[in-house]
Amino acid sequence: MLVVMKPQATEEDIRRVAAKIEAMGFRAHLIPGAQRTAVGITGNPGPLDPAEFESLPGVAEAIRVSKPYKLVSREVKPENSVIQVGPAEAGVRIGGPELGIIAGPCAVESREQLLLAAEAVKKAGARLLRGGAFKPRTSPYSFQGLGRPALEALAEARRQFGLMIVTETIDPENCDLVEEYADVLQVGARNMQNFSLLKRVGRSPKPVLLKRGLSATLEEFLMAAEYVLSEGNYNVILCERGVRTFSDHSRNTLDLSLVPAVKSLSHLPILVDPSHGTGRRDKVIPMARAAVAAGADGLIVEVHPDPDRALSDGYQSLFPSQFQELMNQVTAIAAVLGRSTQPRSGMAPS
Amino acid sequence: MLVVMKPQATEEDIRRVAAKIEAMGFRAHLIPGAQRTAVGITGNPGPLDPAEFESLPGVAEAIRVSKPYKLVSREVKPENSVIQVGPAEAGVRIGGPELGIIAGPCAVESREQLLLAAEAVKKAGARLLRGGAFKPRTSPYSFQGLGRPALEALAEARRQFGLMIVTETIDPENCDLVEEYADVLQVGARNMQNFSLLKRVGRSPKPVLLKRGLSATLEEFLMAAEYVLSEGNYNVILCERGVRTFSDHSRNTLDLSLVPAVKSLSHLPILVDPSHGTGRRDKVIPMARAAVAAGADGLIVEVHPDPDRALSDGYQSLFPSQFQELMNQVTAIAAVLGRSTQPRSGMAPS
Amino acid sequence: MLVVMKPQATEEDIRRVAAKIEAMGFRAHLIPGAQRTAVGITGNPGPLDPAEFESLPGVAEAIRVSKPYKLVSREVKPENSVIQVGPAEAGVRIGGPELGIIAGPCAVESREQLLLAAEAVKKAGARLLRGGAFKPRTSPYSFQGLGRPALEALAEARRQFGLMIVTETIDPENCDLVEEYADVLQVGARNMQNFSLLKRVGRSPKPVLLKRGLSATLEEFLMAAEYVLSEGNYNVILCERGVRTFSDHSRNTLDLSLVPAVKSLSHLPILVDPSHGTGRRDKVIPMARAAVAAGADGLIVEVHPDPDRALSDGYQSLFPSQFQELMNQVTAIAAVLGRSTQPRSGMAPS
Amino acid sequence: MLVVMKPQATEEDIRRVAAKIEAMGFRAHLIPGAQRTAVGITGNPGPLDPAEFESLPGVAEAIRVSKPYKLVSREVKPENSVIQVGPAEAGVRIGGPELGIIAGPCAVESREQLLLAAEAVKKAGARLLRGGAFKPRTSPYSFQGLGRPALEALAEARRQFGLMIVTETIDPENCDLVEEYADVLQVGARNMQNFSLLKRVGRSPKPVLLKRGLSATLEEFLMAAEYVLSEGNYNVILCERGVRTFSDHSRNTLDLSLVPAVKSLSHLPILVDPSHGTGRRDKVIPMARAAVAAGADGLIVEVHPDPDRALSDGYQSLFPSQFQELMNQVTAIAAVLGRSTQPRSGMAPS
Repeated sequence: MLVVMKPQATEEDIRRVAAKIEAMGFRAHLIPGAQRTAVGITGNPGPLDPAEFESLPGVAEAIRVSKPYKLVSREVKPENSVIQVGPAEAGVRIGGPELGIIAGPCAVESREQLLLAAEAVKKAGARLLRGGAFKPRTSPYSFQGLGRPALEALAEARRQFGLMIVTETIDPENCDLVEEYADVLQVGARNMQNFSLLKRVGRSPKPVLLKRGLSATLEEFLMAAEYVLSEGNYNVILCERGVRTFSDHSRNTLDLSLVPAVKSLSHLPILVDPSHGTGRRDKVIPMARAAVAAGADGLIVEVHPDPDRALSDGYQSLFPSQFQELMNQVTAIAAVLGRSTQPRSGMAPS
Repeated sequence: MLVVMKPQATEEDIRRVAAKIEAMGFRAHLIPGAQRTAVGITGNPGPLDPAEFESLPGVAEAIRVSKPYKLVSREVKPENSVIQVGPAEAGVRIGGPELGIIAGPCAVESREQLLLAAEAVKKAGARLLRGGAFKPRTSPYSFQGLGRPALEALAEARRQFGLMIVTETIDPENCDLVEEYADVLQVGARNMQNFSLLKRVGRSPKPVLLKRGLSATLEEFLMAAEYVLSEGNYNVILCERGVRTFSDHSRNTLDLSLVPAVKSLSHLPILVDPSHGTGRRDKVIPMARAAVAAGADGLIVEVHPDPDRALSDGYQSLFPSQFQELMNQVTAIAAVLGRSTQPRSGMAPS
Repeated sequence: MLVVMKPQATEEDIRRVAAKIEAMGFRAHLIPGAQRTAVGITGNPGPLDPAEFESLPGVAEAIRVSKPYKLVSREVKPENSVIQVGPAEAGVRIGGPELGIIAGPCAVESREQLLLAAEAVKKAGARLLRGGAFKPRTSPYSFQGLGRPALEALAEARRQFGLMIVTETIDPENCDLVEEYADVLQVGARNMQNFSLLKRVGRSPKPVLLKRGLSATLEEFLMAAEYVLSEGNYNVILCERGVRTFSDHSRNTLDLSLVPAVKSLSHLPILVDPSHGTGRRDKVIPMARAAVAAGADGLIVEVHPDPDRALSDGYQSLFPSQFQELMNQVTAIAAVLGRSTQPRSGMAPS
Repeated sequence: MLVVMKPQATEEDIRRVAAKIEAMGFRAHLIPGAQRTAVGITGNPGPLDPAEFESLPGVAEAIRVSKPYKLVSREVKPENSVIQVGPAEAGVRIGGPELGIIAGPCAVESREQLLLAAEAVKKAGARLLRGGAFKPRTSPYSFQGLGRPALEALAEARRQFGLMIVTETIDPENCDLVEEYADVLQVGARNMQNFSLLKRVGRSPKPVLLKRGLSATLEEFLMAAEYVLSEGNYNVILCERGVRTFSDHSRNTLDLSLVPAVKSLSHLPILVDPSHGTGRRDKVIPMARAAVAAGADGLIVEVHPDPDRALSDGYQSLFPSQFQELMNQVTAIAAVLGRSTQPRSGMAPS
């Protein structure tokens, strides 16, 4: 249920509604909007009576949410969510006119490799750096990431280049460490329904980048995001990264129609990962263009200073010059849609 | 095997190569190129000896084709094929800088409906008209098309609006009738491996629009095109229209990464059908933009003068005003890629 | 709509109902049952008024059929259909207690090969022989079947071994020839929605073996069968042969749960093809056992006298000794379900 | 690499090989066999030189393992693994002639519900009880299991009925609690690639039931098992539970051909879950029969004393009388394959 406050409702009115909800044993979620605030209710085992709330001062109406997901739904929050990554003055806002472009190597392999990648990413105009410190790998015998030294290298890249750091957390315990360093906590596709991890990042102060599972429906994807929001972290960025089908000309089948589908059902921003989505370097730029043309709020792209020597995903990582080319092309497509790869002022904060 | 002629080879040289191939009991396919002509060989049960051909006058080299498909392969013809639809002076060229935009109703329901659709399509700037006269339908009890009267209506629309006609043929016998009227013979997704039909359209003088089957791999798709070329019709336009997956937020999953994949393996043009590819009106425009951004050579879009009363596919058909909007947006995206929705002169022939 | 006659209704009553239906411009289908006859109506564009029929003599009730498929539905015919293949005295009945086991090579490669295969199939206890005379092949350059000489060889195998002949027809024109020889007309998976072919076999006096398309839903599969029945041929045998999925340990994913699903919705018999369903010789016997255990009405299995030299599908064809083993195991499983691989008398007619 | 000892090798010889492996910084895995012991090596970053080991006393040969999975491979251990569940005298052995039948409710809803279910399961002849204490649910607002009280109820059911307990663990931390109670630790389909959890159960003394992910390939599935074995827990039972496809007549598509595929590549036992595999009560018995006929080592089946009031998965849970029927039918199928639903003596230990 969603309790919609009147535009002129006072903070006291809102507090009273929230208190009543908590007193009933449920959870209240404040959802500020451009015109009016709403209060979402979760945790109720069955439908509630709107009259319980509509008689309170400042309440416009109490409405049932028709979808199984609540807090992620546009029914509950009609305006797009814009997620602040990093500090307000130096960070990036994802979901607004600026596209969020995240780039960097699949895994941090060394301090040197990461700083070279960061330099290339920065130079091409991206403002967020990816790099795995903990890598979920199909084989127990594959390189699983450098761990803490990788996080240190990411922090250094942030200091040197002013890039915001996006890196993956792989289990609830591991999250304690990762959230010390990351600006955005990434939850990988294979963990999309690792509910213990979703609940843990739902209690983090850091934004979450949630990748779609390899065979997740849109409803399951939004439900996974709902897990995070229901714990109190409303800063979730969705990411399409290809699904598994019979099709064998690409590693996965990038499902770009998810972008407008998410936009119509949810207020959360959605990025696209053309690197995992295609698995082939020569398909990354065309699909990056397509993603932005479809209305994505940004991209996450694998870039490596020396892809042929990468410890993982080398065949899908761009060379730095290719990433520069990608940025040029994507910037031109973005302009057609009234968007940009840079903040409003036209210059990245340094 | 592919016999590549020297740039200075004479017509007589080429004729001699072709004659030798036919004398061996195989089939010779002339493949003219910008620099030199090549002669493809099909019908040989096993590998041939290059020396058989390399000793002939005017032959540069004879090379084995590594892919299972031959005539559709870029190995055999490195330049993009540009398919002439309709007469040279008034028709449309698909595969070059101009995007081929095909639009119109799923089915021709009446002369009036079709002419209204054609007018809207023309007005928005498209130059090819689609409309089914024979409809393959899942149910034997559904509307199966008007047949010949629909073809007559299409011909009238061509006369009135100068639009080129794209319509589906459903079996070899039916093709005799359809090719009297159509400028492009469409082979539907469910018939992609109807080999009798592929052979029949392979003997037609009209270009063929071949839609990808619902669960066809890229190799199977190119092989289906190879059936048409192997019969002597080299004017094949491919079309991605969504594949069948577990995903349920769209009717099919539009596999846009097929576009760059086709481009790297084949010289044939490839269009995208965002109407069947999504099955939802509100997803058509974003996916049309994405298709063009991915590098597609054009679009095929369902437009109906009154979608809510359409006899088939109404929920995915655009209103005329939406199609105008699509054309505007797609034209802007195309410009970024150095392409256009109009012929070079900037004006459609009238 | 289904008009259910009273048990005591006369032939005259039934004829009167059918005549009324035809007079209305629709098609009447007589559906005899154990207790009473029913008359199905197809071709009506919208719902009919039951009162139109319930006032006629001998009519018990007129009921709407809730499914999009009508004649194939158990609503319309509650009893299992048992399809007579070949002459009553020497043929095989599919859908009753006896399992219909069809075996033989993928393609007829020569008279000798076929007769050797037929001998092995007969010896192992099967009573129906498969063998392709016309082969739909992915590549235009692959062996496409021997055509009429293959049909002649099949006819000779029938004479020599008393086996019923199952062979594929690939287009409406081709059907004229095939139905001269075949006891069962096979429609392949790639032609499941070749509606022109479905209509043609729907006008044949021969039973039809209809294979499920690679990505057909159950409803589409039943609808394809409905095409055949709606033309007047009620002798359709369905066949599950694996669907296309991401799974790569088998050629296709054999969807055995289709067997009980068909049984609950339709009266038609359903066979399983473990050869195409798995694509690997060593999986055929386990999946044949599983199919029979799931309730299938029979099997269609590829057996070749010399699989390593087969022109097609050799890796999935059984050696004759393996087919004997399959028959032994399947017979034992069948017994658990009260079924048999032999006709009631326990001996095959010779 | 696998170091195969001679049949007459001494314990001292084996210890020497293991010590050398550990001294090289790798991990040694003792793999006892009927004829001879082998020592598997994992943790080596690249190929090793066989000569390093072949010169040691008692070593027959050192061979490279060709598959990416090592310890789960039949190359490394040709004999079937038989997993002991519970104490030797009163437990169940899975992977041998006796089928392991696990049955019970999706979730433990109350002590009463569980004991009723346990009684029914026991009466029908099953020897392992399933019941979720911690439930991974798509929605954060759905019933997520009773937690510890559920584990207490399971322990009581074990005491009262002598059933072995199979229950799910959902994250590494949670595993500490679950392994106090469970006889088998279940890892659910959504956690198949939760590598932190796989490593944790790999260090548990309890056997692990590992369910295949919804879109996992066979290789990924075996790799997930390899994670568990590589940590030292060799008691892994695999379970096919249906994969996600376009097919919509069942909740998932039960991929029974995985059973013979696993058998040929791995020594681990494999069960089948026809409840999740079909999602429909009326398909469970046919698919249970089919699974056993395909060669599965057992089943895991949802049974509820009152399915219509189940808090989860009620529509796929059997009534107790249906489960009795399932046991009867499956026992008859098993007999055909020389297997049984009861231990060798023909009586369950009490």
